[in-house]
Amino acid sequence: MNNIIRFGVSIDEKLLTRFDNLIAQKGYVNRSEAIRDLIRDMLVQEDTAAPEADVIGTLTLIYSHHASDLSEKLNDIQHQHHDNIISTVHVHLDEHNCLEVLLLQGEKQIVQKIADNLLSVKNVRHGKLTITTTGKDLS
Amino acid sequence: MNNIIRFGVSIDEKLLTRFDNLIAQKGYVNRSEAIRDLIRDMLVQEDTAAPEADVIGTLTLIYSHHASDLSEKLNDIQHQHHDNIISTVHVHLDEHNCLEVLLLQGEKQIVQKIADNLLSVKNVRHGKLTITTTGKDLS
Amino acid sequence: MNNIIRFGVSIDEKLLTRFDNLIAQKGYVNRSEAIRDLIRDMLVQEDTAAPEADVIGTLTLIYSHHASDLSEKLNDIQHQHHDNIISTVHVHLDEHNCLEVLLLQGEKQIVQKIADNLLSVKNVRHGKLTITTTGKDLS
Amino acid sequence: MNNIIRFGVSIDEKLLTRFDNLIAQKGYVNRSEAIRDLIRDMLVQEDTAAPEADVIGTLTLIYSHHASDLSEKLNDIQHQHHDNIISTVHVHLDEHNCLEVLLLQGEKQIVQKIADNLLSVKNVRHGKLTITTTGKDLS
Repeated sequence: MNNIIRFGVSIDEKLLTRFDNLIAQKGYVNRSEAIRDLIRDMLVQEDTAAPEADVIGTLTLIYSHHASDLSEKLNDIQHQHHDNIISTVHVHLDEHNCLEVLLLQGEKQIVQKIADNLLSVKNVRHGKLTITTTGKDLS
Repeated sequence: MNNIIRFGVSIDEKLLTRFDNLIAQKGYVNRSEAIRDLIRDMLVQEDTAAPEADVIGTLTLIYSHHASDLSEKLNDIQHQHHDNIISTVHVHLDEHNCLEVLLLQGEKQIVQKIADNLLSVKNVRHGKLTITTTGKDLS
Repeated sequence: MNNIIRFGVSIDEKLLTRFDNLIAQKGYVNRSEAIRDLIRDMLVQEDTAAPEADVIGTLTLIYSHHASDLSEKLNDIQHQHHDNIISTVHVHLDEHNCLEVLLLQGEKQIVQKIADNLLSVKNVRHGKLTITTTGKDLS
Repeated sequence: MNNIIRFGVSIDEKLLTRFDNLIAQKGYVNRSEAIRDLIRDMLVQEDTAAPEADVIGTLTLIYSHHASDLSEKLNDIQHQHHDNIISTVHVHLDEHNCLEVLLLQGEKQIVQKIADNLLSVKNVRHGKLTITTTGKDLS
């Protein structure tokens, strides 16, 4: 079991009122959880800064399924990196556009390299890579 | 069928050499595709700037499955917004941590509100929302 | 005088230890100040989100002073917006490159428009606009 | 003298029309300059990625001048790093708030460390560090 402790924060009353209003609007039920989230955000930024950090990557790709052999190309590249691709999910957005989201894990620089390889394929219309934590040491 | 046209760009030779090296390293097979990607990035930023823009959101959540009734809470919130949640994918990262990625579509401000509601739940350790395009008008 | 109050935060001990180490490394002398900074960051993000928000903008421009009449062009554009430009500072970086930083104040959308106008001038090699708060309501 | 060359880009007509509209709105007088800016942005991201990269940093600080000996503290820290601080500019925003912008140059990790030291001082209400290029190799 983890050990829960309590510490005090001194703060200007007006600033605290503004904070309380904002976190209520976001859906927080108490201050401690909002503060813990701010602390975890700061730690995750630090944890995922180094090129060698073990990270989770979420790669969002938008592409046209009309492009001949695009699916195969994307598939080929993905298979070369199957060690780092946990799974993928595919959505048919409209008659033309597909949304594909890849969940990646591994060294940040490798995750970024895989994303570069997929984003540079012709007819991939847009894409974004989000780097986050594996959740370790964030209890 | 779309109409493909060609236009010329004048540029300093050294700058072009640096660009060619960087895009080769990223995996591009020609300059046109790299330039089109830069243009689409710029348009997507514009397309997704307004709170009312129709967008795709990818929400990456990391949480501990030990927390009692957390899954139910997350599920409850998601069901209230089933119109905007296309699908979700779940990964058991290790003994403690779960990765859940939600694919969202709708007005940017609604997508952000749903993300706020989920991220503020206790025991959700970390999360990030990425906003991207639905792919319309990016042919 | 502002009224200072104190509230308690409950947190896992290991998480707090990691936080304490990180803020010590950044130079914080106590937890309260680090927590207040996290709270203010969150409020500033909210305060500066709307296009009509009153903001401070810091525009960093890098350009070559060899380009004929570039300084005049930049000056002309700046004078059209003197109401929003508080001051500028100029540095001769090397034989070729100048660094110019403009301090802007006003509606976010106007500050962004002025930045667009300056960044689009030929021979401005690079630039970045940072949006921050006027400091009001952050006591 | 630098050597200017010209290359062709093939693109869908509708995409080009959208690009032309957007860059006109931003103030570009021709496509080449807009394309060069996109290319330089991509190179600057690469140039400033490594912790050892030589960069320009613009640090924007907002603080209350009422706080006793804050100016001296900020001044002390700055003098310890005078090698990396090119110059600073100060603005009296209102009765309470000061805006101070520091122009920094040096290794990215050192510039970030200096920013951390200044941002962690009590009564500095907010701050943001922007990293950009020294302009070298961007002709």
